Amino acid sequence: MANAFYGQSGGVSAVINATAAGIIEGAKAYPELIDKVFAGRDGILGALYENLVDISEESEETLAGLVHTPGGAFGSCRHKLQNPNVNHDEYQRLIDVFRAHDIRYFFYNGGGDSQDTTRKLADAAHYVGYDLTCIGVPKTIDNDLPETDCCPGFGSVAKYVAVSALEASLDVASMHKTSTKVFVMEVMGRHTGWIAAAAGLACDNRELGPDVILVPEITFDRDAFVRRVQQTVAKKGFCIVVAAEGIRDDSGNFVSQMETTDAFGHAQLGGVAPRLVDYIKQSLNYKCHWSVCDYLQRAARHIASKTDVDQAYAVGKAAVDYAAQGLQAVMPGIVREQSVPYQWHIEPIHISKVAGGEKHMPRHYMSKDGFSLTQAGRDYFAPLIEGEAYPPYRNGLPDYQKCRNRLLERKLPEYFGKTTQKPTPETA
Amino acid sequence: MANAFYGQSGGVSAVINATAAGIIEGAKAYPELIDKVFAGRDGILGALYENLVDISEESEETLAGLVHTPGGAFGSCRHKLQNPNVNHDEYQRLIDVFRAHDIRYFFYNGGGDSQDTTRKLADAAHYVGYDLTCIGVPKTIDNDLPETDCCPGFGSVAKYVAVSALEASLDVASMHKTSTKVFVMEVMGRHTGWIAAAAGLACDNRELGPDVILVPEITFDRDAFVRRVQQTVAKKGFCIVVAAEGIRDDSGNFVSQMETTDAFGHAQLGGVAPRLVDYIKQSLNYKCHWSVCDYLQRAARHIASKTDVDQAYAVGKAAVDYAAQGLQAVMPGIVREQSVPYQWHIEPIHISKVAGGEKHMPRHYMSKDGFSLTQAGRDYFAPLIEGEAYPPYRNGLPDYQKCRNRLLERKLPEYFGKTTQKPTPETA
Repeated sequence: MANAFYGQSGGVSAVINATAAGIIEGAKAYPELIDKVFAGRDGILGALYENLVDISEESEETLAGLVHTPGGAFGSCRHKLQNPNVNHDEYQRLIDVFRAHDIRYFFYNGGGDSQDTTRKLADAAHYVGYDLTCIGVPKTIDNDLPETDCCPGFGSVAKYVAVSALEASLDVASMHKTSTKVFVMEVMGRHTGWIAAAAGLACDNRELGPDVILVPEITFDRDAFVRRVQQTVAKKGFCIVVAAEGIRDDSGNFVSQMETTDAFGHAQLGGVAPRLVDYIKQSLNYKCHWSVCDYLQRAARHIASKTDVDQAYAVGKAAVDYAAQGLQAVMPGIVREQSVPYQWHIEPIHISKVAGGEKHMPRHYMSKDGFSLTQAGRDYFAPLIEGEAYPPYRNGLPDYQKCRNRLLERKLPEYFGKTTQKPTPETA
Repeated sequence: MANAFYGQSGGVSAVINATAAGIIEGAKAYPELIDKVFAGRDGILGALYENLVDISEESEETLAGLVHTPGGAFGSCRHKLQNPNVNHDEYQRLIDVFRAHDIRYFFYNGGGDSQDTTRKLADAAHYVGYDLTCIGVPKTIDNDLPETDCCPGFGSVAKYVAVSALEASLDVASMHKTSTKVFVMEVMGRHTGWIAAAAGLACDNRELGPDVILVPEITFDRDAFVRRVQQTVAKKGFCIVVAAEGIRDDSGNFVSQMETTDAFGHAQLGGVAPRLVDYIKQSLNYKCHWSVCDYLQRAARHIASKTDVDQAYAVGKAAVDYAAQGLQAVMPGIVREQSVPYQWHIEPIHISKVAGGEKHMPRHYMSKDGFSLTQAGRDYFAPLIEGEAYPPYRNGLPDYQKCRNRLLERKLPEYFGKTTQKPTPETA
């Protein structure tokens, strides 16, 4: 019997805590193997700096509420482990902390970069002969993990953007004759258009939903875009545009200029919507409005997809099952059996197939002209937004939980890693 | 027995169609007085251009769905009637159309400018001796109508921004140690801070919700703002800012520059959030994220307040009752009896007290430093977001209805008004 470490990594989502709940409740099924579950405060940084939380110290109410609470209950981070030959100290420190707290199970919940962390740690533990079962757990609103059919976190964002685009189209449809003709909604998606494309689910034969969808996989052509907006306004009186933040022109430049980069070296974007509105105004002089969803879309637990919540919980539970079965360096992946009615199951995927990967949206999910979701795309996305999973409410607001996150007493000297990001100090 | 005209005016909301439902169902209680309800296509423009829809031609399903469908089901407009001495033709035309269709009841659903339309029309009808019962029906997400305790449409926006600010704060709380420290959320509110202030409902003793709220009623002081953000980040690690689009500096300039003006002469704003982020970055170099809610907030029927939906329906029904009782030039106003538990009723307000007015938020709803919601403010806002009123869903999306809006056969020659905005042509 030993303890388990659970860490949340990368951008958080509306359902990552449902995965935490799956792991916490899943671990109870193996009392002979797993004693306590320790959450890392801010993901892997919690292990490095020995900032650990004993999950059993949280109240029953808090733990029961994880499944409906957005954000990362234990804190997340964007910290990429370097290669062992570059920074061996980091791995040594992780093993030291795990040994000190008798941690023999490592569950890391994140996207491609986080799966890479799990893979590297599994290798390092093996190299130094420390027995550590390492299981990756999928989470990314970007839906860009290879191998798995979809990623927990994505379905809820997809539902949010489709519902929002539908609602905005009803608003603009009401006013377009004498007011706003074009509405531009900016959604997340640095390199892939999964989120933007999913907004197309709001389209039906009633002229509602997005008329123009812009995805990073398809080169942005300003003239073609403006022409399409003009044609749409001429035809139906107004135009709803949904644009991914990461669209680029034919020179490969982001339509929204790069400003800074985050810790993973990704460009930080924002501001595509006002840029597109500028283009439209310059050429067409329509009255335009625009919105930028940003964090609201990925935190919107109030409009989460039930399918997504179920899958998020299921991958957490499966991760523990895999660990109990003695699997090593795998990630629970979602396998689609059929779309209508939607049926899926979970299978282990070796983490080397997932680590650092990035899955682009198939080109045929978008129409030839690049602006609309095709039937093939609809078939893929539709089941992922199915079902509602409302949080309970108190006084008109969702009754979201907040963990106490009291730190375990430290057993090791303070860590002064040479290249790691250091979280703001917190006392045990 | 005669017919009734119903028009939607100004910016639409998540619950204006619930008011329409209240009027349509309310009219059924007076079969001896009201024969048909005709909706104006695009508000008053529908009367001017004789674009009328016989509501009874819509399907039962569509009419039943109005109560949960956002946007303006019959189209809205921003058209301000000029004074009769300036443009007498417009009034004459309206009376002509009403006479042609035997319309003797006029229900106009909108904000301060729309109430002004109703007042002017009532006067004009009286002047020319045409018997027309004119009832204003309140609707504005801005919550700035005088006399009434609150305005249908507002409670749902308040709920949306409070829920969104709460969710965003959970997101940023998860990541702030190594990522985003400041999140800025821009909400509507040209002249009043009702919406921005209501986001403060998300604050509790858990360090969630907005830390800094910026409202137009309080002069924006860049230095004080940046200092407050810095202090908040120093204290709790991150800072959530909610800013109304209409905040101004001490010279009276909008923080977001003016670009154009709408038909009512209001400045069209947008882009406060990126401006505030610029200020923060220049002084503090924190990683920031920002969102602009724009139409999403006022169309978000999926997270509507049940209180708001109930009140929206009730004012519609009351409007018909007032008409049946022979009241003239009144608007149903909401009277708060008590806040806990919330009790309210509806009373007629003479429209001259409301027309063109604009109610600012009381200063004591905000703290002395101007950045936080006070207990008095909470007491006011809290009941307005109470209760959930989810729309039905189909295939993962709200089952919103769309009216056919087939136009009645015209009885008069085409109208070529000299100063009116003309809607895009539509054939009967």
